[in-house]
Parts: sequence; C-alpha cells; structure tokens
Amino acid sequence: PLWTADKPVSPFKLTPRHFEHIMSLGQPWEHQHGRISLDNSNSHESNLLEYEAFDVLSPRGPLDEGKVLLIVDMRVAENRKDHYTDNFKSSSLIVRRNKEFTISIKLDRAFSAEQDDVQLEFLIGSSPNDNKGTYITVSIGKGKHNRHWKGRVVEIQGNEVTVGITPNASCIIGRFRTFVAIVTDFGRQRTQRNQDTDFYVLFNPWDPADQVYMDKEEDRQEYVMNDVGIIYNGEYNNISSRSWNFGQFEEGVLDACLMVMDAGKVPLLFRGNATEVVRQGSALLNAQDDKGVMVGNWSGDYSSGTAPTAWTGSPEILLKYASEGCEPVSFVQCWVFAGVMNTFTRCLGIPARVITNFFSAHDNTGNVKTDIVLDKDGKIDRSRTKDSVWNYHCWNEVYMKRPDLPENFSGWQVVDCTPQETSDGLYRCGPTSVNAIKEGELSYPFDAKFVFAEVKSISMFLLLPYTAYVGKLILTKKKDSSRYEDITSNYKYPEGSLKEREAMQMAERRGVSSRDYLPLAEAGVTIELQADTIKMGENLKLTLNIKNQTSQTCIISAIITGCVAYYTGVTMSPTQCDYNIFTAESLTIDVKALEYMPYLVEQSNLLFVVYGQVEESETSLSTMRVVNLHPPELTIKVNMTGSPMVGKELMVSVEFLNPYNFILQKVNLRIDGPGLILTKLKYYSQILPGASVKYKVLLIPRFLGKKVLMACLDCPLLRQVTNQLEFEVVKDENRNDLKE
Amino acid sequence: PLWTADKPVSPFKLTPRHFEHIMSLGQPWEHQHGRISLDNSNSHESNLLEYEAFDVLSPRGPLDEGKVLLIVDMRVAENRKDHYTDNFKSSSLIVRRNKEFTISIKLDRAFSAEQDDVQLEFLIGSSPNDNKGTYITVSIGKGKHNRHWKGRVVEIQGNEVTVGITPNASCIIGRFRTFVAIVTDFGRQRTQRNQDTDFYVLFNPWDPADQVYMDKEEDRQEYVMNDVGIIYNGEYNNISSRSWNFGQFEEGVLDACLMVMDAGKVPLLFRGNATEVVRQGSALLNAQDDKGVMVGNWSGDYSSGTAPTAWTGSPEILLKYASEGCEPVSFVQCWVFAGVMNTFTRCLGIPARVITNFFSAHDNTGNVKTDIVLDKDGKIDRSRTKDSVWNYHCWNEVYMKRPDLPENFSGWQVVDCTPQETSDGLYRCGPTSVNAIKEGELSYPFDAKFVFAEVKSISMFLLLPYTAYVGKLILTKKKDSSRYEDITSNYKYPEGSLKEREAMQMAERRGVSSRDYLPLAEAGVTIELQADTIKMGENLKLTLNIKNQTSQTCIISAIITGCVAYYTGVTMSPTQCDYNIFTAESLTIDVKALEYMPYLVEQSNLLFVVYGQVEESETSLSTMRVVNLHPPELTIKVNMTGSPMVGKELMVSVEFLNPYNFILQKVNLRIDGPGLILTKLKYYSQILPGASVKYKVLLIPRFLGKKVLMACLDCPLLRQVTNQLEFEVVKDENRNDLKE
Repeated sequence: PLWTADKPVSPFKLTPRHFEHIMSLGQPWEHQHGRISLDNSNSHESNLLEYEAFDVLSPRGPLDEGKVLLIVDMRVAENRKDHYTDNFKSSSLIVRRNKEFTISIKLDRAFSAEQDDVQLEFLIGSSPNDNKGTYITVSIGKGKHNRHWKGRVVEIQGNEVTVGITPNASCIIGRFRTFVAIVTDFGRQRTQRNQDTDFYVLFNPWDPADQVYMDKEEDRQEYVMNDVGIIYNGEYNNISSRSWNFGQFEEGVLDACLMVMDAGKVPLLFRGNATEVVRQGSALLNAQDDKGVMVGNWSGDYSSGTAPTAWTGSPEILLKYASEGCEPVSFVQCWVFAGVMNTFTRCLGIPARVITNFFSAHDNTGNVKTDIVLDKDGKIDRSRTKDSVWNYHCWNEVYMKRPDLPENFSGWQVVDCTPQETSDGLYRCGPTSVNAIKEGELSYPFDAKFVFAEVKSISMFLLLPYTAYVGKLILTKKKDSSRYEDITSNYKYPEGSLKEREAMQMAERRGVSSRDYLPLAEAGVTIELQADTIKMGENLKLTLNIKNQTSQTCIISAIITGCVAYYTGVTMSPTQCDYNIFTAESLTIDVKALEYMPYLVEQSNLLFVVYGQVEESETSLSTMRVVNLHPPELTIKVNMTGSPMVGKELMVSVEFLNPYNFILQKVNLRIDGPGLILTKLKYYSQILPGASVKYKVLLIPRFLGKKVLMACLDCPLLRQVTNQLEFEVVKDENRNDLKE
Repeated sequence: PLWTADKPVSPFKLTPRHFEHIMSLGQPWEHQHGRISLDNSNSHESNLLEYEAFDVLSPRGPLDEGKVLLIVDMRVAENRKDHYTDNFKSSSLIVRRNKEFTISIKLDRAFSAEQDDVQLEFLIGSSPNDNKGTYITVSIGKGKHNRHWKGRVVEIQGNEVTVGITPNASCIIGRFRTFVAIVTDFGRQRTQRNQDTDFYVLFNPWDPADQVYMDKEEDRQEYVMNDVGIIYNGEYNNISSRSWNFGQFEEGVLDACLMVMDAGKVPLLFRGNATEVVRQGSALLNAQDDKGVMVGNWSGDYSSGTAPTAWTGSPEILLKYASEGCEPVSFVQCWVFAGVMNTFTRCLGIPARVITNFFSAHDNTGNVKTDIVLDKDGKIDRSRTKDSVWNYHCWNEVYMKRPDLPENFSGWQVVDCTPQETSDGLYRCGPTSVNAIKEGELSYPFDAKFVFAEVKSISMFLLLPYTAYVGKLILTKKKDSSRYEDITSNYKYPEGSLKEREAMQMAERRGVSSRDYLPLAEAGVTIELQADTIKMGENLKLTLNIKNQTSQTCIISAIITGCVAYYTGVTMSPTQCDYNIFTAESLTIDVKALEYMPYLVEQSNLLFVVYGQVEESETSLSTMRVVNLHPPELTIKVNMTGSPMVGKELMVSVEFLNPYNFILQKVNLRIDGPGLILTKLKYYSQILPGASVKYKVLLIPRFLGKKVLMACLDCPLLRQVTNQLEFEVVKDENRNDLKE
C-alpha cells in the first residue's frame, strides 16, 4: 500500500516504490535517530488512500467504480459479552487476543468467496507496517494469505457478510482502526476512515495460548475482573487495611492506560509482550526520569498537592493524569503506586494483585545486607546504618509466562513501581519471578537481587543478626473474600530449613555477599516489649518483660528510647524520651499522649528500642517494638430500609467527630465506590474540637451484586482515617429493563 | 563529620546531628525524587569544615591549635610508574585499585603511631557518604577502623610521614579529593581543600582481585595500553581496514570520559562496577534518548556535520564533546562508535577490543530470523524483507568477571553502542557474555538475544535458508601485530556440528523462534558469481559460472540485477542494470564505471543478485555477490634520512591525486598520530580532475618506540580514502634527559 504521510520525507528523492520500501524499514526521516525507528504511539495515525492503483507493471484498465462498500456493524454488545469486556464503561468494541469476534460488512452485490477478493485491514499507530504487526490484512475472499490474524466468513445474507476475525495470541494490544478493501486487477478500493469502527484488543487470560493465561475461572474473576480490593498496611504486630478502588472498567481508564504508554514512548512493537508492558509500566507510573503518572513524596509536607493518604482509588489519579496532558499527579506513597499499577495491569488484561511485605528491607548498596546499628545510647546510629527497613512496603504481583526464562520461572512475578532505586538506569523494578526469589536464582532479569533483599536480607540489628526479622510476613487479599492470604512461603523456605540454606548458597553464587552470622551473646536473660494497641491521642502502657534463666539474680541497666517513626522506618522525631531502669521481672512505663502527639506524622508509629546490659556477665541485650496508633472512627451509613436496588436512588452519609482538643484544618473527605459513584470530594476548612461533620450523598447503583462504598478523611494533623461499607445491590422487582 | 552544604535543607528543622543522619540516607531535599537519592556527578563537590568540634557529650576543653598540617607530596611520578599510568598526558596522580600508592604528609612534630590519631580522608562527589564509598577515611594513628581502604606508615623522617594507601579492589573509579585530619579529644583539625592533591582511581587489570583482571601481560599491553588500533571493514570477499587513534592517554581524554558519565547521571555508587560502567557507557556514547556523545547518521547527507568516514580517531570526538558542554558530535557510524567505546573503556582501565562481524544480521522483530526475499524480478522485496543484513558491523568486546552470572559466563563480553534497537528502554546493548551466545544461553542479562541474532540468525535468502550466511566471519586485531585474528569460533560452534544443534535448541528453549529449514531445491545446476576487485571508477568484469551436474544439457533463463548498496545492506540506487541470459558454462559481463559512478555512496559496494530458472526442471537458482570498490591512493611520506628521533623535528607529507574526470569539492584532509601530534585538519575547497595536493606537517615525537601516523581524505563525492605509516622513533644519542 501507499501511505499518506503527514511528515517531511527523507533527504532522498523518492519514487513511491522506494518510499514504500523505506516505510517497511522504518521512517527514513528518523534514520538519524538510530538505524531503525520505532513507532511508539497509539494516538498518532497515518491512514490509507481510499483508492490505490497497482504497480505500473500490471495490465492497465478502467477502475471498477461500481462497488458500494461499508461496515454495517461492529456487533459491540455480543462481542463484548463473549470477550469478558462488558464491564467496561465504553461504547467501543473491546476484544481479547486469540478469540474470534464478528463484524458485518456490506457489498454492492452478493459476496462470492470464489470471485471476490475482500480484505479487512487493521491499523495501529502512525507507520503501519506489515512486518511489525501494526498493519494487518485479513483476506476473506479468493486472495488468501493471512499472516497475522485469522479470518473467515461466518454468514452471508444477500449483500451482507458476517466476518469472523481472530487476532493472533501474541498481537499488539491497543486501539486499532478498521478498513475494508475490495481488490480488483486494477487496484484496491477501501472504506473511509471511521472512528466508530475503531476497537481495542486486550490480553486474554482466558486463552491457553496467551502469555497471561490463567486456568482457574475464580482466579480470573479476582485478579482480572475484580475492580475493588483491600491493601494491607500498619505494622506486623497490628495489621490494618484499607479498601481501594481499582476501577479498571471506569469510563476513560482504558484510554488513560494506553496514554501512559504513549507518553512513555513504549514502542508498539513491544506492546504485545506482557513482560515488556509490565516492566515499562513500572517505570512510567512513577514520575522519576520520565514524566510519569505519580510523584512519590515521603517528606511529610504535601501542601502543594494531595496527601498520599487522602486517595481512595486509582481512577481519580489516572483520569487526572490523562485529562491534564500527562502532568504527573502529586503526591503518593507505595500503596498508591501499587494500587494504580494494579489498575493498569488488570485493565489491559494482565492478572495482578497487590502485595504487602512487613519489615521490608531497602538495600541501597546492593549487598543484600541491612544493617540497623544502635549507638551506645541505644539510639539508631544512622551514620552506620546502611539501609532502612520499612514497617511495610507494597508492590504488585502479575501472572504470566516468561518465555525468556527457564520454565519454572513462569507464574507470579514481582513488579514494583515505587521509585526506590534505579534499575538499569530508570526507576522501576521487575518483573522478577517469585519462584526465582525463593530459589535464590538471582541472575535472571529483572531486579531479582533487589527484591530478594526486600524479603530475605539479613538484618544486623545492633550487630546481632535478626535473620527472621526482614520480610517477616507477606500478605495479599484472599480471592473472593475480604480476609488476607499469607503468601510468605511463596517467597521463602522456612527459616533454618535445608532448602533455605541451599537457596541462600545459590544467591551467594549469584553475587550476593555472604551472610557472616555473628554468634548471639549468651546473656541468660531475655527481654521483650509489650504494648496494647491504642487510638491516636490516648496514653500508652508499655511493658518490658524480663526473663532470667540464670540461677542467680542479676542487675540490668537499660535504656528505653521512644520516638515517632515513618512507615519507611525513617525516624523523624526531634526529641526522644529516655528511661533508665534497674530492674526486676517486669516494668511498666506510661507514655502520655502529649509526649508523642506534637511529633506525629501520617500513619504514625511509635518506635521503642531497649538496649541494656547485664551487669554481672556484661553481655548486652536489645529488643524493639513498633506501636501503630489507630485513627479515630469514620462512620458510613445507608439511610434506607431494605436493600439497595439497581436504578433506585440511594442516600448514604459519612460522619466524623473530632475527638481531640485541637482544631482540624483543611480537611478533605472523599467518598468512592466503583459501580456506584465516581470519586466525590468534600472540603471542610476546619472542624472544631468535639465538633462533628456529616456528609450526605445521593447515588444510583448501576449493577447488581456486592458493592463497596469507601470513605477517607484526611488533613495535615490527622491522616489515615478511612472506612468502607459493603452491601448487596438487588434487582428492583418492578423493573426488568436492566442488564444483570 | 559535618558537611558544608550548598543547597537548601529539608523541610524539617534539623540539628546538625539530624542533618548528619539524613546525609547518610541521601539528601533530604531530594526525598521527593525517589526515596533514596543517588549522587551522580564526579564534578560537583561538597567539602569538609577545616575544624569540627565533637559531640556536646564529650568533655569540653581548649582546642589544640598547635599543629601544622600539610600534604607535602603526592609522589606523582613514582606512583604512576608503579600503577602503569605514566602514559597519561596529565600532571595529576593516577592510580589503580587494590595497589598501594604513597603520599607524604607533614606534622608539627615527630609522628607517633601510639599517641597521634591521624586520618586521611578521600572524598568523591557532592554528598560524600561513608556507606556509599564516596567518603573514605584511612586512619594511620592509634584510632584504627579502616572500613574501605588500607593504610600504613611506610616511613617516618622527623615530622614527615610517608603513608601507603591501598584503595579496595571494588572501589569507585573517578577523581577523588584528599584531606588529612588530626583527631584530638576536642575535635578534628583538617588540611584545606587543595586541587593539587586530587587524584584519579582506575580499574586494575593487573590485580587478581579486580573485576577486570587479565592474567597475561601481553594481553594487558594490547587491550589496555595500546592506544592505536586497526578496524576491519569492507566486505567478506574483500576485507579492508583502517587505522584508528584510540588515544586514551591523550590530554583531557580521561576527564572527558568521566564527564560522559556525569552528563549521563551514572550514580557514583555504581562506578566501581565494571558491568554497570560498560552498560551505561554503551547508552551514553550514542546521542539517543540522552544527550550522548555521538549522533549516528546513515542518511548519506552529512552536510550539517563531519562525515562518519572523515574521522581518524577518538580524542578529537571526545574532546569536542567535553569542550562544547556535552553537545552531541555529528556524525558517526558503527566503526566510530566502536572506536570511541574502545577509548572510553581502555582509558578507565577495562580491557577492550574492536570486533567486526561480516554479514551482521539486524533482527528488529526479535524472532532471530532474518528474511531476505527477492521478488520475481530478482530484486530485493523490502515489503517482505523483515530485517536487513549489514555487509559488516562493528562492536566491542570487554573483558571482565560477571559476578552476577554463573561463572562460565565471565570473560569477553559483547557491548555495542551503535543505536540499533532499544534495550530495556534505552539505545544500548550489552554487556553480554560471548560464551553465553555460543551456548545459546540467552536468558541472562544483557541483550544476549539481539547479539545472538547478529551472528547466528538464519537468513532466509529468496526463501532458501542460507544458515551459514549470517555472521560469516568475525575479526579483531591480533595482539602485537597489524594482522587480524579470526574469532568466529568464540561465537559459534562449527556449522552443522552436534554442539551447534544443541546450542540452537537451548536458544529455542529461551524464546528464540525455532528455525524452520526449507529443503534446498535440487536443481542439479549450481551458479556462482565471480568479480575481480577494482578501484572506484574502473570498469568491472563480472563472471557468472554455471556448473551442470545433470547428464543432459539444459537452458537457464536468469536475470542479473546490480545496484549500489550501503554497508548497512540498504540499497539506495534508484536505477538497476538488468541482464538477460540464456546460457552455456560461463558468462562474462562488463559493468562500465559510468553505470555505477553516479549512484555511489560512502564506502560503496556493488550488489549483484542472480535469480534464474532451469527451464527443464523448473527449479529456481539464485546467488548474490557484493563487490567492494577500492578508493584511490593516499600517500604518506617521512621526509628525512635515518629514523625519527625523540624531541627532534620531523617533516611528514601527505599526497593525493584526483584520478577522476570530475571536480572533488569540500575536501577534508586529516592527519593523526597518538604520541606524535594531535589531529590536524586541512581543508581544500576543490581538487580539479588530474590535479594533486600535498600537505606538509612538522612534528616532534614525544616517546620512543613504534608509532603510527594516519591520514584520511574525505569529501561528498569520495569517501574512505585512508592510509597509515608505521615507523620506529629512536633515541637521540646527543640527548639523555628524556624518559624511555
């Protein structure tokens, strides 16, 4: 075909024939940028001439003008039901790879497979190319040579032909343009460009030939179709969680996800490869070193944007990014990165889930060893502490075959778009096989060593190795449930097992610095910190239990240090409260609210460290404890009798009481619920001590089934105030015109 | 230590103690850009206070002001001789890792190892950090705790102490700053910042503990110390070559190489890792997607810069880049990329060599299959030809351990900075283990699959598979010789061997699409093209030999197509000369100069393709031949009797005669010779037909031994006119004040 180009052509004087040749090599005017140019945008087009005469060598003759040609129907509704894409709020056809969809076309006379040569042409991007899978022809007439996609005649009714098209299992995902052409001896006659015949192709977890195939239907329902989830956070001893609106089917989200790849110049050629899509996605969702989607901020100051804790879901962020010309959205932290990544992947058809790793080590020296060293006063000595350990860190797992790796490394893959360290020059991480992490096989791409450190690095706590400390618990939401699933054993063999030692040895053969265990000092005395979980603003009872296994009594001198800590483990409190003890069996310390309240930061934790000495044996003792403070209540109510019904108005209210003796200022209240409402935001300039606010919203459920309504209150002095309400939307018996 | 910072500090109110803590975690003001910030420039500094009082907890007291402190001598000359860095044209100290160098310092009284606590401090970059290897202290007094580098007292003479310092084997390479401090109970007293005490640390191929260790001295002499080389090009049947000035020791080149990494924001933390340095280097030497060093251009139009064929060496390019504020240099092609990469690596101490691969396949679809399809007229059908095959392609091999991979993949690694395809988002390629390519182990980083295709992909030539065609010959310069070494067997097992099949099967298990061999048609007749090598502008005799193994005579109808081709295999000539033959045993065709001269491009090749049919059996035959045209002579003469002497003036002349009947315009003539002169450029607006030019240069040899003088003439109508002259520089018996 001849392309209509909207760019200046090359320095060469080109005949159409040469131009065509060069097109198939990439655009000549980009030769100076690398020998082969890559088409890297789904949003740019170059299209086809409506009439194209053939090579001068062929016999000349009059053009057969007679034919009326058009596409009658893309059969959106039925095709989308077959392709599990009917949840998308969109009027376009959306299909999945390697599964047939049907469209109807019309000719000027009855179609004959023997005489007519009818070709369907599918184009994506600005330099459609037969060899790059961006220009696809499917012949349904006599001229059969279908290189990429299968096509067949399903039904002929007079002049109307129903055609079945099957994109191949590895084809590019994105938005395609459709043309129909009739080929005669003299030339090719085509339909005009028509936006209504555009359609989307997605990955297909239902198809065994697809790289992202998942064999259990219940898995696909959870990891691809579920548009709401739970993200775990808090602290190992005191796990909390919050609901998250993935909203991958909300209006505009699919286009936004494609726009993310366009903005990131991901070559179309690579977009059929799930490994590539996920890896580039992990780079493009953070604003580092490319103008990506989200700006990470752990500084405590979020005045120039939205606080990371204030978001309730992904659509608000993705749509903001897309509607504002791909300007990065401020601000987010790890669970938001993971939440949006989950939307990006599920939306494109790649199975995914959000993971929370408690005590996640951050190895920034690549030696897979995390030293937490206390100085002689029992305070964390940052100048000697190499890396920080986060109370928790969130990332994603995606499910796919890894044709580039040995077979046993297919399956769940870790991908992390929180910018922690550059991977091969960009801030991104993964995909890396979970099995490879478990086996200590760290040579294969991508970033296995870094992830291994997060879950497995030996933590030198006060120079005593706490091997079991890092990656202590790894959780994800259980499928079809609101409880969590412990998947720690996917990442590690049991502590001290033979298998674990073997995995560690393998890791050391792959460049991980060997773990020099220091012998634990035999104190004969053990200490442990206990604390009851409290609400933010309450006083805390902290108990130090001391077990003396030696025969004689002994004196212990110890210091307990307390400070306020970020979830990243970076302590920021400028003051510390110290206690000196000379002690018996146990000791209780009262920590007053006013001792910690002035220093609180979002999702506050109190970190207590004990460091002591047994005077007799001069052996040292130490332990630590993180106390996670619970925020006050946020109540969600449905104001109606009986259950909510599809299409029927429904009144919900969110209430909050300020329990503190200080004023809450610049308060944002969000309400969110996929399938119920788009994110709603209410602003209160202040809430006085003891005062309460009530926010009412009217909504109309669109679908049957279980729905989740979530709310989040956020202000500089108080973060992480969230709640969710789950209810069943039933059918309105008086109406039947609704889809189930 | 307390840092003197030249940037605004974080949003928190920080006490010096906290500031220090946060410094060790990365700069707080960059927290919003990724949780951990990376120091990525060797050219930015932040330094140390001259006096630093200790923690308030320590006993107060008057500061001991008495001490006079200074660094007397960096012992540049002797240290550099020991460290094999005396070839560098630089006045600074340059040392290699894990080898001791000595410096002298002076105190106010005799040094006592028991009483004095003297520390040497070495800093690199703008946020020196103990944990990142960018702030190194070496204690030579009583206070011993040397984490990174070893230090010892070599000699004490009164107040002067000679100290031996040994950077550790994996330390960061680059320019360090030196301070000496005396520690008293009250504080730390330091020397002032002094540029003269800056020094460079390089990789150390002489040391077994270094990642780039090479055990044979003759190898190190060739692959690290040799500053001039030969790069092979031309065509498989007719190999030509040109000398190249690597000039890694020329003045300013080392600083330029470090500047390349600074401009590319390569974190200092990674600069001790040769794998990382080489990989980032391969991305930074091309101007793709980062403002790298060189702009690739294969368009034929170089009017806006220097033609790729016109360069004679690397220093001119690197120094131009560095002196013009890191503006990319125009224009280059693969052998220039490889030449400069070789300078970059050898300069930093990484063993490297330039490789030429003849018939190098370019796989841009990642299927490791290269289809060259001819249409029925015997012309290359680009619309069906997936990839192009270059007559030759140049890349580099670097020698290093790969601690991240299984052991057998250490050794020579392929690295290629010619921008062909993006690797993981950027235009770069490698390092990838040559052994891994040979074994078909393509899963390990980096880019094994792409390199495998270049040497091993099956080429479908006219739908007949020519397996042996691609990567037919792989050459590099033989050490200590001007001949070439055939290293094809490093990359591939013999064609058809069991080992080769096994390697291919392994590759297929790693995601390479399997090779569907088509049976070769049994024509019973074979054809072969023969051509004598000619000078550009001469007529060509082309002979087609036909062998008939069948019993009966048969008629062959064939077409011979000739066209002008780039070395990239992309044919650009708009006309073709066709010949029809009905034939006997053999046939000779005369190709007149005027048939091809109008269409010549740089380093021109004529491509002849025969496509024919045996009429009786109706089986088809095909073959091809590339004829490489030799450019006219360029003569270099030394105008003196006897051999050139160090320090003695020497007159050399370069002569050229225009043998053509057309005018040569805009002619550039370059003369170059490491250790003899910096690149000299002479411009001629035109050279008339039959006219000749003579350029004389006066130079003074600086070193003894074998030297190479090279010249290159270049103009739009005539490229690749090069020559070199080798001669021995001897000692001037009348002088003895010269280094040998």
